[in-house]
Amino acid sequence: MDEPQKSFHMSPEEFRTAGREVIDWIARYHENVENLPVVSKVAPGEVFRSLPDQPPQVGEAVSNILPDLDRAVMPGISHWQSPNFYAYFPSNNSGPSVLGDLVSSGLGVQGMLWATSPACTEVEMKMLDWLVQMLGLPEHFLSSSQGGGVIQDSVSSASLCALLAAREQITGGKCNEEGCRMPLVAYSSTQAHSHVEKDVRVAGIGSTNLRLIDVDENFAMRPDALDRAMAADKVAGKIPFFVCATIGTTSSLALDPIAEIAEVCRKHGVWLHVDAAMAGTAAVCPEFRWTHRGVESADSYAFNPHKWMFTNFDCTAFYVKDRKALINSLSVVPEYLRNQASDAGAVIDYRDWHVPLGRRFRALKLWFVIRHYGVEGLQFHIRQHIALAQEFASWVKADSRFELLAPHPLNLVCFRLKSGDEASERLLKRLNASGEMFVSHTKLDGKYAIRFCVGQARTERRHVEAAWTAMREAAE
Amino acid sequence: MDEPQKSFHMSPEEFRTAGREVIDWIARYHENVENLPVVSKVAPGEVFRSLPDQPPQVGEAVSNILPDLDRAVMPGISHWQSPNFYAYFPSNNSGPSVLGDLVSSGLGVQGMLWATSPACTEVEMKMLDWLVQMLGLPEHFLSSSQGGGVIQDSVSSASLCALLAAREQITGGKCNEEGCRMPLVAYSSTQAHSHVEKDVRVAGIGSTNLRLIDVDENFAMRPDALDRAMAADKVAGKIPFFVCATIGTTSSLALDPIAEIAEVCRKHGVWLHVDAAMAGTAAVCPEFRWTHRGVESADSYAFNPHKWMFTNFDCTAFYVKDRKALINSLSVVPEYLRNQASDAGAVIDYRDWHVPLGRRFRALKLWFVIRHYGVEGLQFHIRQHIALAQEFASWVKADSRFELLAPHPLNLVCFRLKSGDEASERLLKRLNASGEMFVSHTKLDGKYAIRFCVGQARTERRHVEAAWTAMREAAE
Repeated sequence: MDEPQKSFHMSPEEFRTAGREVIDWIARYHENVENLPVVSKVAPGEVFRSLPDQPPQVGEAVSNILPDLDRAVMPGISHWQSPNFYAYFPSNNSGPSVLGDLVSSGLGVQGMLWATSPACTEVEMKMLDWLVQMLGLPEHFLSSSQGGGVIQDSVSSASLCALLAAREQITGGKCNEEGCRMPLVAYSSTQAHSHVEKDVRVAGIGSTNLRLIDVDENFAMRPDALDRAMAADKVAGKIPFFVCATIGTTSSLALDPIAEIAEVCRKHGVWLHVDAAMAGTAAVCPEFRWTHRGVESADSYAFNPHKWMFTNFDCTAFYVKDRKALINSLSVVPEYLRNQASDAGAVIDYRDWHVPLGRRFRALKLWFVIRHYGVEGLQFHIRQHIALAQEFASWVKADSRFELLAPHPLNLVCFRLKSGDEASERLLKRLNASGEMFVSHTKLDGKYAIRFCVGQARTERRHVEAAWTAMREAAE
Repeated sequence: MDEPQKSFHMSPEEFRTAGREVIDWIARYHENVENLPVVSKVAPGEVFRSLPDQPPQVGEAVSNILPDLDRAVMPGISHWQSPNFYAYFPSNNSGPSVLGDLVSSGLGVQGMLWATSPACTEVEMKMLDWLVQMLGLPEHFLSSSQGGGVIQDSVSSASLCALLAAREQITGGKCNEEGCRMPLVAYSSTQAHSHVEKDVRVAGIGSTNLRLIDVDENFAMRPDALDRAMAADKVAGKIPFFVCATIGTTSSLALDPIAEIAEVCRKHGVWLHVDAAMAGTAAVCPEFRWTHRGVESADSYAFNPHKWMFTNFDCTAFYVKDRKALINSLSVVPEYLRNQASDAGAVIDYRDWHVPLGRRFRALKLWFVIRHYGVEGLQFHIRQHIALAQEFASWVKADSRFELLAPHPLNLVCFRLKSGDEASERLLKRLNASGEMFVSHTKLDGKYAIRFCVGQARTERRHVEAAWTAMREAAE
């Protein structure tokens, strides 16, 4: 062996030592996170100012960085992995996921093309096929069909790609070639996630060409209103082309009636995308698959294992019924990416399934998670979260000072103090300032609503009980 | 303490044990990667078929997964971390980067808003400020200015955002509101990366409204041709609005003359985006900053620490001179994301700086990398790569069977056998099939060119020597 040259790289032995330190640091963090104030109290600029203004000229050991992590960074962390985190939707990690992702970082391969590292593509195909079975999704989402699945970074990006595929299909590629001159119109409910508006802007459709359809008393999209809107747009010379329906809206986990919406889409020849970002994971349990009734009629579907399936961000599972429109919309093949396997049409090149070219080996963390938990382990924790949310809702209902503001079929409970918006907002601020929990808010029918989502991996009954006790006391 | 409930989660103790196994697995991988055939030889479907068709019902220990990783996955890996990897552009990891990213996975926080975990935003602001200093970029890219930087997943996405900001600025928001009805035209050179075409399609501009400007004998964009194209478009009633110039094209690392292009952009009132995906890192060394001459006139700029700065994917540093157009283009604020800090305008909310909403704490890996190497460590390895590429080019030049096909100011050498395209392609295939290296190809002036990029973190002189020896032998 030659003598290795001078090098600033970390040697494998240094990596072993520093790696153990970091593993221990994370293990300790998870042991203690329950006791930390959930919401950070730093003021704007505090963390920024605690780091040097200039980059270091000379390097140093990773073991020197960990104390600075504790000193400078940790005070600015709001703890998404605390069992007392009930805000927004969860963004869970888990031991197996962190380690699967660690393998991915260590391998450091690129999966833009099948040819650049075949396993990166094929393990992803297999994991996305597994998820089809685990959620009871239609077979035309399997990789063996005309459709298939891909991992994206977020439902915002996935929904943009669905919209681009729909745009491609309705315009026969014209939009991609000549620009978006046609009067296309997209639809979602008033309760759909804000990414739909972001996506129509990005794609050059324009926010005034997004119709926010009325919802019923359960905050679910009204198919009759959708039908009328499309008919009116057609009369006005517009071209309806895309609907984003939601299984589990962000505000209240409302369930749009997919089967009925699909009927309307079929009638008008419109692409149906289903956004099940949070609630998709519920379908791992057969008894909650009713939430997905009609999904077999969707042209595309997305949900986030990085929310409720203990797989750390980013990991959005995005499916299309027919991959052709998607690929036609996004494929541009320069010479430096051409290769035999792609030219032969024998493989999937995931670069054509989303906007970025580069892609890391994200399927590994899914593989580690599904093998560690098994389907039964995932089902157990999902059921537990839903049962806890149901119990919490029953406590809210039984307390005459509070009122529920929306149905709560899964793991999100929206409620407020009957004394009104201001009192409810004060309550939320007090709870979050206490350090004991993190809850977030929304508005439902114009009313300020506290959102309490039981979905953090390690939330147990005792945490939910303690949260309710704190709420009752704070409400005094 | 209460008795913990039944749980399928990995305990901190199990995480410590499994974590050490994975750290050791990665250390061994890096010790051995040099000896592995660089290019995988699996056939399409081989890895896919080696994994079970159905997800496991019952979970198991992570230590059971690692042998399957070796058996089923590793044969399908082409090794981007091999010192014998010279293909495409590198996508390096490094010990400190893997560990910084591991901390990010373990913390599992979301940085879509400042308020969701303030440190995630503020460490990112600081790291992007450090990079401005390290590359000698203009001060208006600092977070304290009207502009600033953000981490994105890829230059494809970053360039899309630059294009959206330019679209917003030229149309005064009209495109975002009403859709892209205006006859906008974008420009890049014939040598620009394929993402520019992908981006104009996505944004509803259309690929026929992208002008690919002629290049000179060094494959650099001709400012005079750009000027004429814009003038002609204006005469034809079109609206020039966006130029993507490249510092270091993908095919040959050609350097567009930024200062002269900026002059043309100023004259016509057009947004100038500079894509320095690969070559940006060279600017860490003052002696290579001449490649960036004129960058102070760019409206936006992107480069990839995840290529050549030993920071694992994904980590694109994207800067804008004025953040207003970008944010106006991408900001949609629903009630459930409103918060005091954002409403007060006191903070940066990075969700408005790109398409995805969710975002992981990617600044940590940059922090670990910059602190571990220090500026001098990064400079050392960048200089070494460039020196090795220069030496390699001198060998090619001295061998009468070979010819260089493009200038090679940095670390990419494009060459071929004088005997022609077919012989050169056969040579490439033989080299890649040997397992001894991975090189890729492009076409330059219609000629088949072998691309040899010296940028993998651990490539040393002995590897480049061995590669050249193998090439000479294979050329016989």
